[in-house]
Amino acid sequence: MHSNTIGHIIQLTTFGESHGSAMGGVISGFPAGIAVDKAMIQQELAKRKPGQSLLTTQRKEEDEVEFLSGIFEAKTLGTPIGFIVRNQDQKSQDYDALKEVFRPSHADYTWQKKFGIRDHRGGGRSSARETVSRVVAGALAKQLLQHWNITVHAYVSAVGTVGCEVPYTELDLEKTYENDVRCPHESTALQMKANIEEARKQGDTLGGIITCIVKNSPVGLGQPVFAKLHADLAHALFGINAVKGVEIGDGFSITEKKGSTVKDLWSKGDVGRIKTTTNHSGGIQGGISNGEDIVLRVGFKPVSTLQQPLEVMSSSGEEIILTPKGRHDPCVLPRAVVIVESMVAWVMADHLLWACTDTLDKMKKAWL
Amino acid sequence: MHSNTIGHIIQLTTFGESHGSAMGGVISGFPAGIAVDKAMIQQELAKRKPGQSLLTTQRKEEDEVEFLSGIFEAKTLGTPIGFIVRNQDQKSQDYDALKEVFRPSHADYTWQKKFGIRDHRGGGRSSARETVSRVVAGALAKQLLQHWNITVHAYVSAVGTVGCEVPYTELDLEKTYENDVRCPHESTALQMKANIEEARKQGDTLGGIITCIVKNSPVGLGQPVFAKLHADLAHALFGINAVKGVEIGDGFSITEKKGSTVKDLWSKGDVGRIKTTTNHSGGIQGGISNGEDIVLRVGFKPVSTLQQPLEVMSSSGEEIILTPKGRHDPCVLPRAVVIVESMVAWVMADHLLWACTDTLDKMKKAWL
Amino acid sequence: MHSNTIGHIIQLTTFGESHGSAMGGVISGFPAGIAVDKAMIQQELAKRKPGQSLLTTQRKEEDEVEFLSGIFEAKTLGTPIGFIVRNQDQKSQDYDALKEVFRPSHADYTWQKKFGIRDHRGGGRSSARETVSRVVAGALAKQLLQHWNITVHAYVSAVGTVGCEVPYTELDLEKTYENDVRCPHESTALQMKANIEEARKQGDTLGGIITCIVKNSPVGLGQPVFAKLHADLAHALFGINAVKGVEIGDGFSITEKKGSTVKDLWSKGDVGRIKTTTNHSGGIQGGISNGEDIVLRVGFKPVSTLQQPLEVMSSSGEEIILTPKGRHDPCVLPRAVVIVESMVAWVMADHLLWACTDTLDKMKKAWL
Amino acid sequence: MHSNTIGHIIQLTTFGESHGSAMGGVISGFPAGIAVDKAMIQQELAKRKPGQSLLTTQRKEEDEVEFLSGIFEAKTLGTPIGFIVRNQDQKSQDYDALKEVFRPSHADYTWQKKFGIRDHRGGGRSSARETVSRVVAGALAKQLLQHWNITVHAYVSAVGTVGCEVPYTELDLEKTYENDVRCPHESTALQMKANIEEARKQGDTLGGIITCIVKNSPVGLGQPVFAKLHADLAHALFGINAVKGVEIGDGFSITEKKGSTVKDLWSKGDVGRIKTTTNHSGGIQGGISNGEDIVLRVGFKPVSTLQQPLEVMSSSGEEIILTPKGRHDPCVLPRAVVIVESMVAWVMADHLLWACTDTLDKMKKAWL
Repeated sequence: MHSNTIGHIIQLTTFGESHGSAMGGVISGFPAGIAVDKAMIQQELAKRKPGQSLLTTQRKEEDEVEFLSGIFEAKTLGTPIGFIVRNQDQKSQDYDALKEVFRPSHADYTWQKKFGIRDHRGGGRSSARETVSRVVAGALAKQLLQHWNITVHAYVSAVGTVGCEVPYTELDLEKTYENDVRCPHESTALQMKANIEEARKQGDTLGGIITCIVKNSPVGLGQPVFAKLHADLAHALFGINAVKGVEIGDGFSITEKKGSTVKDLWSKGDVGRIKTTTNHSGGIQGGISNGEDIVLRVGFKPVSTLQQPLEVMSSSGEEIILTPKGRHDPCVLPRAVVIVESMVAWVMADHLLWACTDTLDKMKKAWL
Repeated sequence: MHSNTIGHIIQLTTFGESHGSAMGGVISGFPAGIAVDKAMIQQELAKRKPGQSLLTTQRKEEDEVEFLSGIFEAKTLGTPIGFIVRNQDQKSQDYDALKEVFRPSHADYTWQKKFGIRDHRGGGRSSARETVSRVVAGALAKQLLQHWNITVHAYVSAVGTVGCEVPYTELDLEKTYENDVRCPHESTALQMKANIEEARKQGDTLGGIITCIVKNSPVGLGQPVFAKLHADLAHALFGINAVKGVEIGDGFSITEKKGSTVKDLWSKGDVGRIKTTTNHSGGIQGGISNGEDIVLRVGFKPVSTLQQPLEVMSSSGEEIILTPKGRHDPCVLPRAVVIVESMVAWVMADHLLWACTDTLDKMKKAWL
Repeated sequence: MHSNTIGHIIQLTTFGESHGSAMGGVISGFPAGIAVDKAMIQQELAKRKPGQSLLTTQRKEEDEVEFLSGIFEAKTLGTPIGFIVRNQDQKSQDYDALKEVFRPSHADYTWQKKFGIRDHRGGGRSSARETVSRVVAGALAKQLLQHWNITVHAYVSAVGTVGCEVPYTELDLEKTYENDVRCPHESTALQMKANIEEARKQGDTLGGIITCIVKNSPVGLGQPVFAKLHADLAHALFGINAVKGVEIGDGFSITEKKGSTVKDLWSKGDVGRIKTTTNHSGGIQGGISNGEDIVLRVGFKPVSTLQQPLEVMSSSGEEIILTPKGRHDPCVLPRAVVIVESMVAWVMADHLLWACTDTLDKMKKAWL
Repeated sequence: MHSNTIGHIIQLTTFGESHGSAMGGVISGFPAGIAVDKAMIQQELAKRKPGQSLLTTQRKEEDEVEFLSGIFEAKTLGTPIGFIVRNQDQKSQDYDALKEVFRPSHADYTWQKKFGIRDHRGGGRSSARETVSRVVAGALAKQLLQHWNITVHAYVSAVGTVGCEVPYTELDLEKTYENDVRCPHESTALQMKANIEEARKQGDTLGGIITCIVKNSPVGLGQPVFAKLHADLAHALFGINAVKGVEIGDGFSITEKKGSTVKDLWSKGDVGRIKTTTNHSGGIQGGISNGEDIVLRVGFKPVSTLQQPLEVMSSSGEEIILTPKGRHDPCVLPRAVVIVESMVAWVMADHLLWACTDTLDKMKKAWL
């Protein structure tokens, strides 16, 4: 794993600055013979696309992915899948004032100090625009996972102080994308939406929480002790811009419970299978999936780019107040839902592949 | 990064089952010419050692590390540092009853299903005993970091429902190891201790939270976009047994705030340096350290091994109730403090090395 | 290191099939602040370009590289450098007859069996066209190395049975690209050229040897025991199409000598430096560069695509004789010179970076 | 892949200096459920062991491997296999004179310059003693490969100027270990032996060539374009001490042939399989195994440690002549045969595992 690459068996390498020529990536190690549904990939990109509603930034991009290699006659070749998404609607001059200053709670200062140079336009590579490549990869991962009926559903479970009180088991996760907020609980979604619009009017921003559920994971995914399934999932999720916390299963709330009250007792399941009667563990025990739903919660900070006077520090050490420019999201959560799903799908697919070499028995079957 | 290896430039590979011959590890890529203080390493191991007080398991191990290579005349050679810690006080027969059964919320079932075989004695490799190797590596990492005055201090900030309300900035983190609980706030520690002893009498267990602070990090550590500093830290922390949640900076609590209230404004610092006036970001912005304190919170579940009747599922699908055996911690938090520090020190040292190749300028200086 | 990625600190990931949309790559970990000379990169590509003379295939491609990221205001950003080279002059229909057959000594059969699918057009990804991406990366590596005055010069030292008898130390390696054959010894070049033209007329092909010399390497590059400098160089060179042998220093000829006759005795060199009086070792001892010239020889087979009746095996097991189509090189050596240089430059740059973290002393200087 | 680790799916990490406490290694990613024959591993070590005859160094070591983890009830657990081989018969004082001097054609100078420190005793980690760990790993790899009937046989095919003229196809490779020289052609072996004894009397050394044959490889091993099967094999072989050249198939000799004369034409093989009528390619085409024998040749230099007056350079720049001490091999080839086999077996096993994830079809079978 390296700075711009994620994955063990399948590896996604991304590139691109927000206002450069293009974003893109290379997917290496993706198995051959998988039918690729390009329309579905474009639909996934549409879920992340800016300019979808007033809730999100008004930057309009086509975000059309061009595949350059690795797919032949609509199937994967086993060779690396190179792809690009051109950057089109760039108002780079909006960022001229930012060339020599560091915004608060942004990546300007740290990147400048680290590299001695930075592309200041739209945040350069520190922009969440980079995640467009992850959505392409995640869409392909989902297409792989569907051969095992493994599904990945994320949704906005909190915006600011408005949380969805209904547990995921009582929600219809297929409805998530039916509203702008991407919360499948309609009345909560309306309240969230109202709050986001309020924040937008104030030029302010809101954070929140995205919950992600993986269903139908086989037992046995995850490689202890340093590639435990939840450790790899957390690593992938913390790589998304603005994420400040990740929980698995009962998460931080379990820290207040007694051990006797949070045991996931076993019961008989289907043939050759046992089940847990509860799921405090969140589908992972000892770093390995146990076949139950995998349950993750991801906390996003309110993004730091406001439509309010901007207190910056110049590179020569002066405190300056600028008028805000550029277009920004009052709340990134709705667009981040598909990004969370993408990262989770990617990790699941990677581990599904990796587990193929766990035992002599599995190897022998693969080589039959 | 692979299942038993962690790190990019310095790589720790661990091995060992709880009741096998020995635990151990190999550290590769550790720079040459570093004076090694073996006594300090042994002291670090003592902080993790079981049998220290009634608060922790009564298993007694010497946990003496034997270095096999990589150190010559008390300095690192630049060659791999191999080491072992023998397993001594093994009451393996205590575990005979567990050979064919799966305990709730343990790794028994998932490991058996994944590998088709497992060492059932003391949890085998899923045991937290594996972390003994991490403490050795962490101690070496600390010895590297001290050349930059970078310190890593963790402490128990919550046990069950008892939290330390005083912020870390008002605590004397040098006092953490002065009490059994490893909470530097004495009155809170006493309350935690009382609760742990209560749980022990009930044969129950408690979880909690460990807070970890890194001071004096240089600006510029972390490699976006997939090896962001906090993503690598979270990955390392989620690899510790029983961890269910990780936060950076304000963590989940920031999700409820408005963006305008959590900006870390810049102010002039020392020469050539700027500072933030607040630290909601937790010392990392855009995945790269900004020179402020790095602040992490790690949530541990109450461990699942109780001293109460044990409801297990046999491999043939029968529900059985066993009498508990073996020795276990009512609360792992105190022993986990040094493990958290070790993982964090490891990641920091790794990124300190990695950043040496960030720029042509840094390269040129290294080759002077 | 993975199937489509090469390098430890700097990593090149390539993608692309010969007759797909584009070839390309991503370079990750390349240091920031390096001025990029795009014209030089294009010149390097020109050295590899087909259609340069009658000696090489008549396929004409512009082979213009488009950089998509990682370079800003003509300097590297420290972010990944994404680039593509479009495929333009594709006569894919020339390859229709090859869809269901396996050519002798080609990759058709092995790729089909491995992946169950292949892009048969122009060899797909098994085509040497993939190396276009390596030349881009190699050119950037050369631009990095020039800050240390490290140079990489390759030349054709044998074509078929015609070898250049003059040792490299007596050749002017700056003249290599002055003739079509890329042998700096003019009379040998003429003889080679005559033989290649003869082979072309016969529809046959010739192999040969490329010698590569690295000058001004610092002492200390290479990471024993599995990333020895020559092991990494050999790995990179064997990855080039048609390579069947690699030697370092005296290579296979040293196997016939007595140890007493091939010792590289030490003599005093410049201040703080010692030199060898001979260079049987080829500049590398114990896997680490010793500061002398690094000397490599790379053996290429005569390529298997002839302009002669083509005996193929159909996928249904029939032996068929086809009329040859497509355009092919009678001798790939001249075009491969820059590819060899590129791979060697890449490995050298990677190890130059890696060595920055060898010692505490180097680290401290980097962080000054 | 990193400095002390080799392998993609299975990873061997080694440690140890020649005169330190122990050599050892960790094998990670080895599949679970493989019966381990420890006696066979010890037999493999015996083939490498010094002191076997007058042909090799008189240093006597027990070289008994102790497994510390990863094996339970004689089967692999899927967890890392840690092992050590203690260093016993160390006459470290023999090396005192070498502490401040650099021997010609040794690793003394380069390691000292790289790391600023070195363990001068017996060559430290640059000693071929490190390969003891590779033989342990290779033996396990062979035990994995035998489930597919894949065999790896190496033998000494040349010592100095004495080459074995009989092709491998006419030799009985099972007889290799029946003589001290490890050349299965008895009369050639006698001649080699005479030459080695002659060299020993002169205090001189001889190099030579080891040929290695892999039989019964499945079609489809190797991952283009940077982990081509022969590139990975060459990388592993160049990592063995004293190796100066590696060839695949016809190797350098093919560079002198015309393409029309070295085509490996296809013929029908067994059901669902095609064969080549010749094997110039050496069993690998396009970087992927084609099912034919894999044929490798590895050139070893005569080792540089002679029993003759030793011209060294002191660290202060003086030329000194020392009396030789220590025990050394007049010819390392016989002991290196099992090392070559080990590295080749390791790479083959690694790629056998890796290929399990090549296609959706293989994945589906593994998960059946």
